[in-house]
This record gives sequence, C-alpha cells and structure tokens, in this order.
Amino acid sequence: MSLLVVGSVAFDSVKTPFGEAADVLGGSATYFSTAASYFTDVNMVAVVGEDFPQKHIDFLKGKKINLDGLQTVPGKTFRWRGEYGYQLNEAKTLETQLNVFERFNPKIADSYKNSEFVFLANIDPELQLEVLRQVKNPLVIGCDTMNFWIKGKKNALLKTLKEVDILIINDGEARELAGEVNLLKAAKCVLSYGPKALIIKRGEYGSLFFNNSNIFAAPAYPLETVFDPTGAGDSFAGGFMGYLSNTRNFSEPAIRQAIIFGSVMASYNVEAFSLDRLKSLDYKDIEGRYREFKRLTHFEDL
Amino acid sequence: MSLLVVGSVAFDSVKTPFGEAADVLGGSATYFSTAASYFTDVNMVAVVGEDFPQKHIDFLKGKKINLDGLQTVPGKTFRWRGEYGYQLNEAKTLETQLNVFERFNPKIADSYKNSEFVFLANIDPELQLEVLRQVKNPLVIGCDTMNFWIKGKKNALLKTLKEVDILIINDGEARELAGEVNLLKAAKCVLSYGPKALIIKRGEYGSLFFNNSNIFAAPAYPLETVFDPTGAGDSFAGGFMGYLSNTRNFSEPAIRQAIIFGSVMASYNVEAFSLDRLKSLDYKDIEGRYREFKRLTHFEDL
Repeated sequence: MSLLVVGSVAFDSVKTPFGEAADVLGGSATYFSTAASYFTDVNMVAVVGEDFPQKHIDFLKGKKINLDGLQTVPGKTFRWRGEYGYQLNEAKTLETQLNVFERFNPKIADSYKNSEFVFLANIDPELQLEVLRQVKNPLVIGCDTMNFWIKGKKNALLKTLKEVDILIINDGEARELAGEVNLLKAAKCVLSYGPKALIIKRGEYGSLFFNNSNIFAAPAYPLETVFDPTGAGDSFAGGFMGYLSNTRNFSEPAIRQAIIFGSVMASYNVEAFSLDRLKSLDYKDIEGRYREFKRLTHFEDL
Repeated sequence: MSLLVVGSVAFDSVKTPFGEAADVLGGSATYFSTAASYFTDVNMVAVVGEDFPQKHIDFLKGKKINLDGLQTVPGKTFRWRGEYGYQLNEAKTLETQLNVFERFNPKIADSYKNSEFVFLANIDPELQLEVLRQVKNPLVIGCDTMNFWIKGKKNALLKTLKEVDILIINDGEARELAGEVNLLKAAKCVLSYGPKALIIKRGEYGSLFFNNSNIFAAPAYPLETVFDPTGAGDSFAGGFMGYLSNTRNFSEPAIRQAIIFGSVMASYNVEAFSLDRLKSLDYKDIEGRYREFKRLTHFEDL
C-alpha cells in the first residue's frame, strides 16, 4: 500500500474571525499527506524554494511521509495570503506568489513509480496528465481541481478526467464544470466526462458521493469553533484516499467508510491554524470521531 | 392520537425558475395538515375569508382533516406572492395581503381540547400562547416562528418558547434568535430559552436536531428538480409531528425516525407547486422514500 500525491507545499498567511497566522506551513500536498499519513505510506511530489526550513522537512519526515519527490530549487516557496469572514466556506485570496511553483515540473521518483494509489491535488491539469504518464497502472486515481482550471484549461482538464477514477471537488466547482446549477444533474454530467465516482464537498454541510447507481450523503461534524478552514478539502481527500489505500477495498461500503474518515480528518483540521491540530492526532482520536459520525447520522430502519 | 395545528390558510402566487402558479392553495396550516394527515388525525385551527372555495374545503376533508376549527369570516383570505431564484433556499416576498388573517383570533373547538399533540405554526407568538392556554396538557408542543417575530415580538416569543417542547426553525432564524453565527452555539442558546429540543432546517442541506445531550444530522433528499420550495418547512413539521403523534413514542430513536419522515414529506412537497405532489401520495410512497434516506446515509460501523 502506497499513496502518491502531487500538489503544492506553501507558506500561508491566514486571517479568520478567530485569529491570524503568518507564514505557516500549508499547501495541498502538505495537508493531504499529513491526513493520509495516519492510514498509509505517502509519497509526496512537490516543490519548495531554498527558504523552506528544515523544521518543516523534519515534521513531514516525522509523519513518515516519503520526500524523495520533494524538489528544492533556487527561489522562494509558494506563498498564499487569504482571509475568511464568518461565512467560513469561502476564502478571499488577498495575495498569491507562485514563486518556484510557477515552473513546477513534477518528476516521479523511481521509488514512487509503483504507487498503487495516486492523488492529483489542485494543480495545472497538464501537469496532472504528466504525472499519470509517469506512474505504472495505479489501482485508483483521485483528482481535485478548481475554477481557475475549469475556466482556463477546460480541454486539458477533460483529458485528465478521462483517466481519473474519483474526482473530489466542491459544489461551486461541480456546478461550473457541468454548467448546471442543480447538483444532481451536475454530478451526472461530471460523471459523463469519465470519472467513475464524484465527491462533492460542501464545507459545513458535508459531502455528497455519486457513482452511476448510488448517492451517499455525509454531514460535516458540527463544531463550535471553526478556527481556520484552510486545507479542509485536502485533509478530507487525504483521509479518504489514505483509508482506501490502507484497505485496498473499493466496494461501495468501503468507499462510504473512507468518506467518513475523510470527514473526520477535515473536521480535525479546521479546529486550528495550519496543521496544528492535524499533526498531533493519534489513531484512537480518529476512530473516536468516526464513531461520533455514526451517532450523528444513525436512525433505525422501518 | 390527535394533532392540533394552528396556522395560516392562504392563496399563494409563486414564481420559480421552473414555472409559476397563481392563487393556489397554500398556508402553513394547509401544508402541515396535509403532510401530517398521512400519519395521524389532524385538527386544524385557521381562518379563511368568504372567497375560499368549497373545492379546497372538500380537499382538506378528503384528507380526513378535522375542520371544526377553521373559521370562515367576512373578507378575503390571506394572500402571499413571492418568487425564488436558482438559489431556492430563500423566497423573495413580493406581496403580502393579510386580509382576514390580520384579525385572526384562534378559537380551539371543544372537539380539539384534548389534542395530545399541538403544533404552533408561524403566527404571532401572542396568539401561540393564547392557543396553549386553551388546550389541556398536551403531551408534546411543537412550534415554528420567523425573523419578523424574533425582531418584533421577542419577549412574547420567549414566553411561548418556555412552554414549547420542540422548536422547528431554519438556520437563519436560529442564528437571529440566539444572536450567534455558529449553529452549535446558537442551538445551545436557543435550548436555554426552554425548548427540550430544537430542529434547525437547512433547505437543500437537510436538518440538524439538538437536545441537551445529542445531535442528529439528516440530509435533504437529492432531487433533480425542485419545482417550488413553498411549504417545505411546514411539510417537514407535519411529517415529523404526525409520525410522533402516530407512535406516541418520544425516545430519541423515534424522534430521529420522525425527522426522516419529515424530510420525506418535505422532499415530496417541493416536487410540484402548491400541494400537487403532497396530496396524491400513498403510505407506500412515503415508506419507499424513507428507505431511500436510509440507503443515502448508511455506512458501516468500525
């Protein structure tokens, strides 16, 4: 069992109604890998600049994340600055410095080529395809994207989607990708592009899973304080793909359990800035919250 | 088993992205009673004008709804005109003619006084209290309200809430009533006002149930076409209270089942204008959709 992820490693500066944090560790690959590390072996593919400190490397290595594919190149690490209002579902981006991420050319280390599970975090769909060309017949390919690529690189994205098993995007992205307001119709349209399954993330409202025959609805875990939603979607994907990689079971019951594990990881992630909560979990915490999801949603048959 | 509801009977004119309907039967008591009629005996308390046609009376009687408490008085029936955009969660009210509803003075018919279950639909909280003074020790009192009363008659509303077992309101109302953005904190605050339980309706995102020890999350049924959301909340409350009245079981498992039955009735209601879908159900349809809710939400224990 091994899970390859390609995505960003970044410094985030975030302001929410509950506080702020400057230049903290972030990025889709970072959140994904950390969440997935509780379930499976993770192979990270990303790029950082020369300003990336050893302490972050040590943290990732401490999570037993394989960094053979983490390139360090001349220049500065990707930086993002954003803020959230009380409506925590959507970030307002204040500044993006792509820096070394602008010329990111993902190279799949030899030690990664047999990764059975692959997750293409939100990067240029042309790079996502490049990655797929370098891996050998993975069992499951998961993928994320965003409105920027849906608008700007639709054709490349559609090519990537033909190769993808499970697309994991938010509701606004699903609507835009399908050109359809109704989520159920949008889901059918997106599935017609190639993915065998689609997970639509809805922030505080949970998520919906669609394949060609069924729908599964998972709530979000109700929290009194959502400190910082940054990375929630990537933590979800990390828990989800991590669990699948661990069990190597792709039945729908297993996929539904994986979605709950994804929801658990996302719920922990938003409890603190950066990876402050996610990094200090143990597997008992994760199982405990899984059981709370069960209590939260269970009702008797007729 | 009998369930008293006090609320409005109205003519609605509604425009949605999918069509429009003029002067069709509506009103909180109408939606509630029709939904509840599939589960229990309903005693309706409401007022209409002399323009209210016999065909609507015949329809309600056909559902075996007791109309002893439906007053017909000189003047015109309450009229509401509104429209919905693609964001179907919130109606834009274009016109409200209170007409006979303005001087509504609910009288509880003698045949109603022993109703074991009472639902106070969204009317002036002073009238809600009047109704409670006229009924004899009901087992369960449910209640709805809206921002208009939260803003304008908060003190009267707080008095009503002290008497209420289950408050059923939407997320915006819960936030406004508590003066708190976070739903979990808002729920705790609302429960401190008196109700033993609170259901927060979230439209297409389902509902959350809170009591002092637990939370239950129910999704909405995913639909390809939401024709007209008018009356969804009242249909939910009707299914919920109707099922409780039928079983006379107030354990939390029964309440959770009642919430699913409420969600079932709301999902049918929005499939057509007015009561067009709600009126033609049979109990097998309702049970069938209940089972679909189970398939929609079920995942395995650890």
